[in-house]
Amino acid sequence: METKTHRRQRVTADAVEPVLAALTPLLGNRLVTTEAVRMQHTNTLTWVDPEPPDAVAYPLSTQEVVEIVKACAAHRVPMIPFGTGTSFEGHVNAPYGGLSVDMSMMTSVVAVHAEDLDVVVQPGVTRKALNEHLRDRGLFFPIDPGADASLGGMASTRASGTNAVRYGTMKDNVLSLTAVLPNGEVVHTARRARKSSSGYDLTRLLVGAEGTLGIITELTLKLHGIPEAVAAGICPFPSVKAACDAVILTIQTGLPVARIELLDPLMVRASNAYSQLSLPETPMLFVEFHGTSAGVAEQAERFGEITAEFEGGPFEWATKAEDRSRLWTARHNAYWAVTTLRPGARSVPTDVCVPISRLAECVEATSRDIEATGLIAPIVGHVGDGNFHVQPLIDMADAEEVAVCKAFLERLVHRAIAMEGTCTGEHGVGQAKRKYLMEEHGRPALDMMRAVKQALDPDDIMNPGKIIPA
Amino acid sequence: METKTHRRQRVTADAVEPVLAALTPLLGNRLVTTEAVRMQHTNTLTWVDPEPPDAVAYPLSTQEVVEIVKACAAHRVPMIPFGTGTSFEGHVNAPYGGLSVDMSMMTSVVAVHAEDLDVVVQPGVTRKALNEHLRDRGLFFPIDPGADASLGGMASTRASGTNAVRYGTMKDNVLSLTAVLPNGEVVHTARRARKSSSGYDLTRLLVGAEGTLGIITELTLKLHGIPEAVAAGICPFPSVKAACDAVILTIQTGLPVARIELLDPLMVRASNAYSQLSLPETPMLFVEFHGTSAGVAEQAERFGEITAEFEGGPFEWATKAEDRSRLWTARHNAYWAVTTLRPGARSVPTDVCVPISRLAECVEATSRDIEATGLIAPIVGHVGDGNFHVQPLIDMADAEEVAVCKAFLERLVHRAIAMEGTCTGEHGVGQAKRKYLMEEHGRPALDMMRAVKQALDPDDIMNPGKIIPA
Repeated sequence: METKTHRRQRVTADAVEPVLAALTPLLGNRLVTTEAVRMQHTNTLTWVDPEPPDAVAYPLSTQEVVEIVKACAAHRVPMIPFGTGTSFEGHVNAPYGGLSVDMSMMTSVVAVHAEDLDVVVQPGVTRKALNEHLRDRGLFFPIDPGADASLGGMASTRASGTNAVRYGTMKDNVLSLTAVLPNGEVVHTARRARKSSSGYDLTRLLVGAEGTLGIITELTLKLHGIPEAVAAGICPFPSVKAACDAVILTIQTGLPVARIELLDPLMVRASNAYSQLSLPETPMLFVEFHGTSAGVAEQAERFGEITAEFEGGPFEWATKAEDRSRLWTARHNAYWAVTTLRPGARSVPTDVCVPISRLAECVEATSRDIEATGLIAPIVGHVGDGNFHVQPLIDMADAEEVAVCKAFLERLVHRAIAMEGTCTGEHGVGQAKRKYLMEEHGRPALDMMRAVKQALDPDDIMNPGKIIPA
Repeated sequence: METKTHRRQRVTADAVEPVLAALTPLLGNRLVTTEAVRMQHTNTLTWVDPEPPDAVAYPLSTQEVVEIVKACAAHRVPMIPFGTGTSFEGHVNAPYGGLSVDMSMMTSVVAVHAEDLDVVVQPGVTRKALNEHLRDRGLFFPIDPGADASLGGMASTRASGTNAVRYGTMKDNVLSLTAVLPNGEVVHTARRARKSSSGYDLTRLLVGAEGTLGIITELTLKLHGIPEAVAAGICPFPSVKAACDAVILTIQTGLPVARIELLDPLMVRASNAYSQLSLPETPMLFVEFHGTSAGVAEQAERFGEITAEFEGGPFEWATKAEDRSRLWTARHNAYWAVTTLRPGARSVPTDVCVPISRLAECVEATSRDIEATGLIAPIVGHVGDGNFHVQPLIDMADAEEVAVCKAFLERLVHRAIAMEGTCTGEHGVGQAKRKYLMEEHGRPALDMMRAVKQALDPDDIMNPGKIIPA
């Protein structure tokens, strides 16, 4: 396999100008070069340094994306697909300049096939907008990262969220994609059949590719029936280990829990303050069960028995929508709740994922590490998958604290990988985690990724500088 | 993208001889060139003409596969990975000669991680052997094509089977693969964490690649807890349409059915005769529910209500293992039952898959087509996925009948593709369905597959002549 690397330089104005000239007649005021807009299209939610594109294009259709790609390809100008900008690892930065291709105006729900439990959407539709659209059909799309991300962005980062333990990740819920490849071709990755053995899995090749192989312009997604009954509850534990052990047994016994989330004491404190809760500040599991009325009652009862085995409890659960909603809104606001713990600090959210048998060990070692460093870094996680988040709050003016945090984050990833885990369970690689890919995957796998990238994007114009290490 | 095609010729003895010479010291009598063994490694279960390899190698380890690949690569000799030879579309034929790499001696269960619900196996382990191994751990692997196929082969063809409606296909149940690439490198596609957003999905790139990108030498598979309770039942219907409509409503209402299989009247007749059943010879659904005792009772009751809406019934169900086992053994023996309908005839099993909303229409049109042609061709299917099988029985000495059947199979695929379906839901492409890939995927998607193939296997030595049309 060839493994030529592209050590790019930032594109020059000479390259960008003809692209802008070519696209202006097509896009008009949907092609923007103001500094404010360009800066909004950098990596804004983390400490990864912002690297603005030269311009931002707002296409309305697959055909317009084709025109954008062709214009950029002709001058080897990078394109960076942009959803809502809620990624954490530098995914939308433009280290080599070029065009940010902002999909936020492609927000049509193209077709709902209720009888097939699927929906066809444009990539700018957000998960909340989709579920709003679906609500009176009795259907929902389960993948829920904290942010109200766009579905194109969620596919690109192989996102998941609290429901993944039951419903899988984007990998499992994308039936088919339409994408514009670096050569301007429009590819349809699969038919609408529920399964297929017909050729290479192009759908899964693009899911998680972070826009480095093409720009997603349409998605066919699997839907699920809104469960007849939902029960949600919370359960305090004496230790993180006890909580993790309860999670492990829950998963092992095959209890079809829909959500099972761990909050460490600091995270509980943040949520109490931000979401006006009054939970005891101890390790806590938030859980949810989906099914029939009898089914969720049975599940909740069994879960209560499991928690008691690990000295957890009391396990309190409710089926009333208001009570559930209050809890899960608090969980989804965790990111913002954390940021209020230390006003003015920079939040540096990250995630790792390990086999569930190593979860307690990994979370505990991480807690001890946090304590030893003195960092303020709550832990919250989709622990049913072995996936957890750490969100240090850093005073960026304090160089020593920044260095301490960087070293902590490195240890976190090495720890997860040493436990047969991954450097990211759901956030993606972007720029910031490229350096871990060799350690995680090994050289042959990285060479295989490079060979695929080079075969499909030989000029390295699709989101260059992401995923694959230089 | 480059799309250079390799119009290969069969390798010459001059190329094969040095490979055999290089490998004989390593493999000894595990390198076989007798005609009988070579013929056993061709496509034996269908009417695709057998094309024997020049030799058959039986490696014991990943390292031996590396040596085989390096020796073959040095002389551009094709390699055809071989599991149990139960594929239907010419997957294991050697149109250009070369070595069949038979994995049947790599049968170790390397590790069972019960607490993580995963298992590491060598590719020659069959699904039944794995489940036998797992039984007293309370775990099982759900993917069950009719044959007792090898897990490496099942991954390579993206197999599924009766449980897919509940547990997914091989795509959903492979956590990670070890494979030897055409360049002799050993790639590990993923870590053992339950989910990851770390780079391209190499696992899914190899699942369904039919050995055209590398040889799988180890698999990490997801396991599931054996359900506490299982209920199985059968339900007759007045018409195929009524049965399909009942399936559609079952799926739409989110009833978590584990298996839901359609047998047309001819298939019922064959099963009655072969498996000593006495079912009414009318369209029939076989169903199974997994869960708690209360859960399966609730599911069965609801299913009974749904069937009644479509004039199906009586729906009879049982939780006794013997009764269930008798039914499902009959279902798994469908292939063999069909062959007994017309002794001496050649069985030509095939499958297509359509969105479930089109299922009734597709099956009915296919039934009418069968009737019009006069073919003997039972229909049986994993209808919860929109996937069904047709198994014509052909007198190969009757050229006209062969021609009628070929035309029928073409119409079947065109019909499925016209209904947004796929030319194969679970059997794979092999040689026989390559001609449909352009119609199904379109040129840009095929070019994308070609580019990936060429990037990873530039000399076209891994199972050449499969999947991608010449």
